[in-house]
Amino acid sequence: MTASAVAVVGTGLIGTSVALALRTAGVRVLLADRDPARLGLACELDAGRPWDQIEPVDHVVLAVPPSVLAAALRSLQMRELGRTFSDVASVKVAPVVEAEALGCNMATFCGGHPIAGRERNGPSAARPDLFQGQLWVLTPGPHTDATAREAAEWVARTCGARPVEMTPAQHDRALGLTSHVPQLVASLLAARLREAQEITVELAGQGLQDTTRLAASDPKLWADVVASNAEPVRGVLAELAGDLDQLLHALASEDAADRRHAVADLVARGNAGRRRLPGKHGVAATFVPVPVVVEDAPGRLAQLFADTAAAGVNVEDLVLEHAPGRPLAVAEIAVRPADANRLAAALTRAGWSVHLGGALPPPHGHTA
Amino acid sequence: MTASAVAVVGTGLIGTSVALALRTAGVRVLLADRDPARLGLACELDAGRPWDQIEPVDHVVLAVPPSVLAAALRSLQMRELGRTFSDVASVKVAPVVEAEALGCNMATFCGGHPIAGRERNGPSAARPDLFQGQLWVLTPGPHTDATAREAAEWVARTCGARPVEMTPAQHDRALGLTSHVPQLVASLLAARLREAQEITVELAGQGLQDTTRLAASDPKLWADVVASNAEPVRGVLAELAGDLDQLLHALASEDAADRRHAVADLVARGNAGRRRLPGKHGVAATFVPVPVVVEDAPGRLAQLFADTAAAGVNVEDLVLEHAPGRPLAVAEIAVRPADANRLAAALTRAGWSVHLGGALPPPHGHTA
Repeated sequence: MTASAVAVVGTGLIGTSVALALRTAGVRVLLADRDPARLGLACELDAGRPWDQIEPVDHVVLAVPPSVLAAALRSLQMRELGRTFSDVASVKVAPVVEAEALGCNMATFCGGHPIAGRERNGPSAARPDLFQGQLWVLTPGPHTDATAREAAEWVARTCGARPVEMTPAQHDRALGLTSHVPQLVASLLAARLREAQEITVELAGQGLQDTTRLAASDPKLWADVVASNAEPVRGVLAELAGDLDQLLHALASEDAADRRHAVADLVARGNAGRRRLPGKHGVAATFVPVPVVVEDAPGRLAQLFADTAAAGVNVEDLVLEHAPGRPLAVAEIAVRPADANRLAAALTRAGWSVHLGGALPPPHGHTA
Repeated sequence: MTASAVAVVGTGLIGTSVALALRTAGVRVLLADRDPARLGLACELDAGRPWDQIEPVDHVVLAVPPSVLAAALRSLQMRELGRTFSDVASVKVAPVVEAEALGCNMATFCGGHPIAGRERNGPSAARPDLFQGQLWVLTPGPHTDATAREAAEWVARTCGARPVEMTPAQHDRALGLTSHVPQLVASLLAARLREAQEITVELAGQGLQDTTRLAASDPKLWADVVASNAEPVRGVLAELAGDLDQLLHALASEDAADRRHAVADLVARGNAGRRRLPGKHGVAATFVPVPVVVEDAPGRLAQLFADTAAAGVNVEDLVLEHAPGRPLAVAEIAVRPADANRLAAALTRAGWSVHLGGALPPPHGHTA
């Protein structure tokens, strides 16, 4: 599909970024926002022209909070202002249920949710490339017709995103786990800091900073999102609460071995969950690092890899740690557990200084 | 104090980094580790020479896990191998209680804990500058004599750290909150990902990555730390569990307003806790951003600040958002809430395009 005019309703970060991306692709974009200041800024940033809400458009992107989505859709449909509609909300089931109850025509609506964001909100933070290469979930319902489905996909692709289709319920369960619950967990943790002594918060390291970063989010925005996705969120949180109760019980044990066992079990299960996330981190946990000292001289690394290949061992990953101020580095060659001793023996025979111990260093670090 | 020889027992990340820092300062360093491979690598990295544990030294830094600290101290004291002793463990009460029970001489021991770390463990990750500018908590006990206290402080300063004194109990309560509980919370959250569908984890954004980063930590190391600091950790976790129970109860409500209120309240309390952490983040939540469009031309920013100063308004913070591909930027001037309307009016009179709305953008962003 191509659209001769698209309206974007809601000129926050996401709406304005969609508008900028469509404008960059040469689409005529009309903008609406109940806040005239926000609308004015989005227009001044060249995201589009104000929509008089008299001229009908081919497609409307509703970039409004989930709690007002159904009413906005109903109002636009009553006035026949759009042929098809999509949205960008991070909750998909509740707005559709509400829209059906309001008598909206669900044939012309296809839900959408671009998985992208920034630390900052509002039109001034908008970027035309915000969605480049990111996933954009499309959630057509049973009544969604092909034209609406195609229009929503066209918006996603025109913004540079990768469309992926899920049912609204699948989406809400997934985002409950990957987005809404992490937000609440970060808030639960950060709330514990309110009455901490000054010296205590000064001891905060990067770990606490990272774990509570989401806690700086906007309360109203999240109240709307989580209240609209309460059941999936409650399901995940209830499982977490079960684990927490078990941990509290074990920590009260007089037996240090009981306490250690419970913590080790929880952290190991966290390791397994963390390894599910995209990215290289955690992969190394299944491999064994073989540390080899390498002199800082031409050709030494090439020789090391030639010797490793000659040993018939596959290099799964590599970290090179340079010893500051010394002409040395340590190459940690990550290999399959079954290969570690064989590689260490082969490299030792080839004259390398290999430090593979029985008590291996833990595969992952911690920040004190 | 100066020491003619210091022994470091335990050549993991922290022990080897202490050794490298002391060596850099010209101190003679002797090393011990029950893992000969780890010891060999630390020596090859020039962190020191192997300690025969026959030659007595002026000071011993015990860089071993908290559960074996007391036994190591007792063994060294029995053989009169050190005049004074300190440690680097992230738990301070339990090892001291155990050491007293073993009959250690607590006059020559002063606890210490450098607040530093890396994502990676082991001697190959060690850095002589790991502690540069970081806090190093000293926890002298009631029996610690001045010589031991001074030796521990000398180690901290020689490593470039800033010593700060706390009681062992204060330290353990503080680290329970800032380090041990965040670790467990990250693990509790990450454990929920183990059985997630593949498409679900593909939707993970930066928020989930950050919130679960600590979950990649070593289970055995953390089992030892948390089991040794169970009571303070349990206290914080029990409060968190109380908040979680309230949230679960509210999310089960049929009334969306109840659900929204509970989530907004929790996220707002998280905002307040997050603002306690060092750093600029969160500060802006107490100020109002006044967005002003600034043309990309010489002298325009200078004029904007001159006009702001003429309005008698103090600039609390500033973010400059450049509109990609357009000769425009938006200056978000953060001011006290009482000053926002006055500044907007003054700048508008001076000819600026100001976009201060009634429905202000939320002060903090979120990642979808």
